[in-house]
Amino acid sequence: MATQANSVPHPTLIQGIHNRWHPDIPPFATVKPGEVFKIECVDWTGAQIGNNDTSDDVKNVDLTKVHNLSGPIAVEGAEPGDCLVVEILDVTPFEKMPWGYTGIFELNNGGGLFAREFDSKAAKAIWDFHGIYATSRHIPGVRFAGVSHPGLIGTAPSAELLATWNKREGALIAEHPNAVPPVAFAPNAVGAYVGQDGLDPKVRQKIAEEGARTIPGREHGGNCDIKNLSRGSRCYFPVFIKGANLSVGDLHFSQGDLSFCGAIEMAGIITFSTSIIKGGIEKFALKQPIFLPSPIDPLYSSKVIFEGISVDYHGDGKQYNMDATVAYKQAALNAIAYLMKQAYLLLSAAPIESHVGALVDSPNACVTLAVPTGIFSHDILPKPEGFTKQDFGQCAIRSDGIV
Amino acid sequence: MATQANSVPHPTLIQGIHNRWHPDIPPFATVKPGEVFKIECVDWTGAQIGNNDTSDDVKNVDLTKVHNLSGPIAVEGAEPGDCLVVEILDVTPFEKMPWGYTGIFELNNGGGLFAREFDSKAAKAIWDFHGIYATSRHIPGVRFAGVSHPGLIGTAPSAELLATWNKREGALIAEHPNAVPPVAFAPNAVGAYVGQDGLDPKVRQKIAEEGARTIPGREHGGNCDIKNLSRGSRCYFPVFIKGANLSVGDLHFSQGDLSFCGAIEMAGIITFSTSIIKGGIEKFALKQPIFLPSPIDPLYSSKVIFEGISVDYHGDGKQYNMDATVAYKQAALNAIAYLMKQAYLLLSAAPIESHVGALVDSPNACVTLAVPTGIFSHDILPKPEGFTKQDFGQCAIRSDGIV
Amino acid sequence: MATQANSVPHPTLIQGIHNRWHPDIPPFATVKPGEVFKIECVDWTGAQIGNNDTSDDVKNVDLTKVHNLSGPIAVEGAEPGDCLVVEILDVTPFEKMPWGYTGIFELNNGGGLFAREFDSKAAKAIWDFHGIYATSRHIPGVRFAGVSHPGLIGTAPSAELLATWNKREGALIAEHPNAVPPVAFAPNAVGAYVGQDGLDPKVRQKIAEEGARTIPGREHGGNCDIKNLSRGSRCYFPVFIKGANLSVGDLHFSQGDLSFCGAIEMAGIITFSTSIIKGGIEKFALKQPIFLPSPIDPLYSSKVIFEGISVDYHGDGKQYNMDATVAYKQAALNAIAYLMKQAYLLLSAAPIESHVGALVDSPNACVTLAVPTGIFSHDILPKPEGFTKQDFGQCAIRSDGIV
Amino acid sequence: MATQANSVPHPTLIQGIHNRWHPDIPPFATVKPGEVFKIECVDWTGAQIGNNDTSDDVKNVDLTKVHNLSGPIAVEGAEPGDCLVVEILDVTPFEKMPWGYTGIFELNNGGGLFAREFDSKAAKAIWDFHGIYATSRHIPGVRFAGVSHPGLIGTAPSAELLATWNKREGALIAEHPNAVPPVAFAPNAVGAYVGQDGLDPKVRQKIAEEGARTIPGREHGGNCDIKNLSRGSRCYFPVFIKGANLSVGDLHFSQGDLSFCGAIEMAGIITFSTSIIKGGIEKFALKQPIFLPSPIDPLYSSKVIFEGISVDYHGDGKQYNMDATVAYKQAALNAIAYLMKQAYLLLSAAPIESHVGALVDSPNACVTLAVPTGIFSHDILPKPEGFTKQDFGQCAIRSDGIV
Repeated sequence: MATQANSVPHPTLIQGIHNRWHPDIPPFATVKPGEVFKIECVDWTGAQIGNNDTSDDVKNVDLTKVHNLSGPIAVEGAEPGDCLVVEILDVTPFEKMPWGYTGIFELNNGGGLFAREFDSKAAKAIWDFHGIYATSRHIPGVRFAGVSHPGLIGTAPSAELLATWNKREGALIAEHPNAVPPVAFAPNAVGAYVGQDGLDPKVRQKIAEEGARTIPGREHGGNCDIKNLSRGSRCYFPVFIKGANLSVGDLHFSQGDLSFCGAIEMAGIITFSTSIIKGGIEKFALKQPIFLPSPIDPLYSSKVIFEGISVDYHGDGKQYNMDATVAYKQAALNAIAYLMKQAYLLLSAAPIESHVGALVDSPNACVTLAVPTGIFSHDILPKPEGFTKQDFGQCAIRSDGIV
Repeated sequence: MATQANSVPHPTLIQGIHNRWHPDIPPFATVKPGEVFKIECVDWTGAQIGNNDTSDDVKNVDLTKVHNLSGPIAVEGAEPGDCLVVEILDVTPFEKMPWGYTGIFELNNGGGLFAREFDSKAAKAIWDFHGIYATSRHIPGVRFAGVSHPGLIGTAPSAELLATWNKREGALIAEHPNAVPPVAFAPNAVGAYVGQDGLDPKVRQKIAEEGARTIPGREHGGNCDIKNLSRGSRCYFPVFIKGANLSVGDLHFSQGDLSFCGAIEMAGIITFSTSIIKGGIEKFALKQPIFLPSPIDPLYSSKVIFEGISVDYHGDGKQYNMDATVAYKQAALNAIAYLMKQAYLLLSAAPIESHVGALVDSPNACVTLAVPTGIFSHDILPKPEGFTKQDFGQCAIRSDGIV
Repeated sequence: MATQANSVPHPTLIQGIHNRWHPDIPPFATVKPGEVFKIECVDWTGAQIGNNDTSDDVKNVDLTKVHNLSGPIAVEGAEPGDCLVVEILDVTPFEKMPWGYTGIFELNNGGGLFAREFDSKAAKAIWDFHGIYATSRHIPGVRFAGVSHPGLIGTAPSAELLATWNKREGALIAEHPNAVPPVAFAPNAVGAYVGQDGLDPKVRQKIAEEGARTIPGREHGGNCDIKNLSRGSRCYFPVFIKGANLSVGDLHFSQGDLSFCGAIEMAGIITFSTSIIKGGIEKFALKQPIFLPSPIDPLYSSKVIFEGISVDYHGDGKQYNMDATVAYKQAALNAIAYLMKQAYLLLSAAPIESHVGALVDSPNACVTLAVPTGIFSHDILPKPEGFTKQDFGQCAIRSDGIV
Repeated sequence: MATQANSVPHPTLIQGIHNRWHPDIPPFATVKPGEVFKIECVDWTGAQIGNNDTSDDVKNVDLTKVHNLSGPIAVEGAEPGDCLVVEILDVTPFEKMPWGYTGIFELNNGGGLFAREFDSKAAKAIWDFHGIYATSRHIPGVRFAGVSHPGLIGTAPSAELLATWNKREGALIAEHPNAVPPVAFAPNAVGAYVGQDGLDPKVRQKIAEEGARTIPGREHGGNCDIKNLSRGSRCYFPVFIKGANLSVGDLHFSQGDLSFCGAIEMAGIITFSTSIIKGGIEKFALKQPIFLPSPIDPLYSSKVIFEGISVDYHGDGKQYNMDATVAYKQAALNAIAYLMKQAYLLLSAAPIESHVGALVDSPNACVTLAVPTGIFSHDILPKPEGFTKQDFGQCAIRSDGIV
């Protein structure tokens, strides 16, 4: 081999776990601009889900403890108003854990985009990683290359920004106090965690009581679940506090534009380098991160594309005005009807693309959803003889048999 | 040249104009499966907009007359329940009219996604076509390859389907009777037109009174404004009446996923061939058309990507629950803030991509919008020295000077 | 339609035909930098080939008359040492002639890369154009999107450059005086043609006697048969004489990297605009044109790739040292063996890619050839059950039945 | 993290090093079809090259010992006549050695495509790997995503095939006995190595004396240096002996189509799975491996493309007949002239594409070479103001200062 002499591996920062957003969480490590470093990440649930054939762990998952984030990492010289440039250089599973999972959560514990429509019961598919590819014993007949990325990455909010979040989300919750699933999640000291031993108990308490939940993406990034934030991409984050305090987690081996019930969740390692653009928030009019995509991305040029409009024709037939969410759901349900069994789990995991086609043709928003044909071992193109619908197998279900 | 001997050009069907959807509009021509044919299309307004430097024509456009569609074309052998396969073989402007336009419509006459936010006044950009490229004297510094496609294409509804449309849209209008712009458009005999001389006046009257407006896309296709329905693509339409009765119009030289104020509208010629899959609606679970994209599509791999979440932070800061429309608007407004002047018109015309990133992370939907860097003559990438914002020039505005 | 008022179509320059390269051929038209203009082109043979089912016209083609070029076009302000930038804005067949052909030429009249190996007899496939696609009644089961381009485009040589060409090619001919096919083509007054009536007969005679044949590509561009010089591309040509004197012809509807027996030859129209970079030859170290590819190009991501090395294992088994031509031939013959009948014509016409893999691993050059799977109506991927080889039909052959 | 319970990492087979091809080298491991396994590979020289700033190690490299291959791996059930399908699931550097090198070899020790033209002296560039990207302190201003692949992979030859190789290469050497660099490499017991302790010394001696050198690619695959054989690709190898006996080595972090002086060489780990197609050699007419490319490949759509023809205009100006090697060299030299200093090393390492444009236009073969613009930190597009040529820095050179 090229000699090991002078080989200097990139340092690995063992994670400082936390599961709330708060400006007072101290950085567990500090890096210099330009430095390449690695961060280990547990899966988003903190190892609550196992590589097995029952979905009881998904059914009973404790969501007060999520998401398990690694960080914060302070970057020397970053100040409020700056732009923190983050290079996502690599994202890989742990070598000893070449597997991940896609879960469907219970209506009353985790939900998901179609939780109400489907009255969701826990289910799960385990995916095995073979180099760049994933396959699942629970969804046979499918193999695809991962577009690995962090589902969740962001800088720490300032106290003011945190207050804004809590206020506006609180107002939404107040409007819909009994919604199932909830319309938003208020700060909750139960389950809150900051894994830094020396932390002043009062600060720890404050973080637990005020810290924003990690469920949604917000102005700082956060849980955006954007598949294109993949390894090789470059992101520009607004900086709200000194040091920027970057945290990351919720690694995905793969995910499409359709994360209605989660991606292929995994534990693993992410490699970063950073730089700072002084005054970048103003320079780039940054209300939220912007990013440049990676030059590597799976290329599946043959696709079947489904449409949806803002009429709930899979439900009660009601007409909505320019509602992209309704349109998106119909496109997804059209794809599920076409592909049938297990498609719900598959579409969450595979490199699907969902485009907002048009929000101009009142009253119907139009959203499309493109399913690559190359990920299937059989032909899914529409044919005169009809499409031979496949049984994509049996996902892992609740051990009480309820489906 | 290769000798003209034995050269048989494809037949051109001169358009039969109509501007409502109704099962009783008779086909103006009938084609056989497999036949290649061309259809001439006027622009969607029916030549109300001129190649000049004032937007008064946009301000005063008569929208009771839109969209001007060419058709219907009956396909021999097509019956209700079948799937009509349509190959979109080519889409070109008329050789004698190498230009198109993008319009911003008045809040009270046409509106658009941001009509209320911007209190829209009429404006317009003229685009000149140079082979595969478009440039605009009103938006200097930009050139891009068109992804030409029909904004509007669909089969005729059955009487039952038409009744469903009118009922559900009527219900929405009844809920919001005074909305500006209107939430939907009821059938309107004013401006209704079917260009077939021999038509029984009673039938003509029925069509005018009952015919669905062409503004939104619906289950039959219609005004979907999907940029990927471009030349080279193959579409699978549900057939609702004998002959299928395909109509097409609203040709676009180019459009992104963002058609919030229209594409590059043009007049031109579309080339089709068709085939029929018997019983295709059931075979493919067709609630709405599906399609296969074209193997040719502009390839602009370098992009700047903007995010938006379902918080109206460009407006009153309110939090919405999983509202992709709000998220999409924020992503668009982030891009407009980054690019500044004229970006509104540009983003409607250029090959932008808008993805629904995630509708799972409650309460925030996340939508992204990717702007290709290769369409600009200057560098729009974020740089440490800041992005040199360009003045993209002066679009054509109202002659009364109101902007 | 958008009104015709103010519509100004691009001017079409009717071709000035010539079939030799010489500095003294006067421009038949002069354009200004920035002007968009169209040029009509006959096919390369000058209409010697017909749309029919016999290949006698290919057998008997008069090659002293080729290539039929349109031009020269002088560009105002271009001077020796400059770089002429040519935008290839569009390339289309004549609307009335939606067809082209691929020919295999006789060993003794036209030859081709495998003329000796196959002892070539005339054969031909006619291709019908359906919008962006080509199909052939002579090669059933195949359809692909064209990458239309000029096979031949270049500036006029100076007297000095012309002398260099004639000298170096003359030397090669002198070394191999009796080669079949010939190793190169000397100037030949027989068949020489310049279609400009007022030309001084002495000049005409000089051009006929000295003019370089158009068969090979040279430093000025010429017959390079580069598929990527397609519509939408931008080319940078060295200028050798005042006005640059650009000529163009040999339009191809499609061609792969494998033009061993011609592309899909057609007659049609090319749209250009030009600009000048003063002193560009020195600025860019231009020994030969450089170019930027088009943003539109057919995207067939699934491919079967064949290799070849510089051992003539399809012939006498001899070992060559780093000979990319031998390697390329083996790759092509491997593909032909895999695909079988008619593959020779198909591979010339379809969007094949051929890469030089490596010229470093002595003695074997390695060349690859990628055949897109998406152009076939049947599955050509290697499968455990074997590949079902197809009969790609019967090309048009000599009327004397000799094959 | 997802729990480690039930996590089963893929097994890693520690390499069995050998550096000759011979049917009698025993497999050091046997795998079952379908099994996923990893193989560790030293760099091709066997750790002769260091991460430092002198090229003396390249100058003095002992090439009798190359290439260091890992294997052979026997696959259960593979028999002569079968096709061995190999999935290249991943290729990564060792985590502790995130670097590689590109070397220019001495004319008299290693050579390279331009060894004679440039009278090559040893030089070297070290590349640092940052996740998917490589940068070099010796070639500043450049960063690109790797297309990692094995430069060398193949099945073992049968005794008959080995004899054929030795005979035909011996004939070439006999024709050019004193060539510098040599035209081919005969078996050479000096430096031959098989790292299996229990091997019968007579067999070991036979292998050393008869074993084919690993320099060139041949019918079994071997040192093809095909960049598209990258992770995610699937290869179909002919099987010549029982077990197939697959060996692999010479890992590249990146390489273009231009490996005239080596790729980015590295040590690392390759992940495989295999399957067998019985009788595949006949089914697929396999004269040499075929393969399917990976769905992931860097996408750099903006390129500057150079041409070359078979006239040695960078040398003595001589005209060659259809010689793709000469044309390829001119294209490369045109690119080097355009990019200037250090381009030779850069072009070997970066994801360049080289296409054989045409081998039909006698006497000039035409080859193109496409350099992606996105790998440079500065703009390399041709501009009216000229291209600002960059100094790409100082590669590592001989410590005696000879350049």
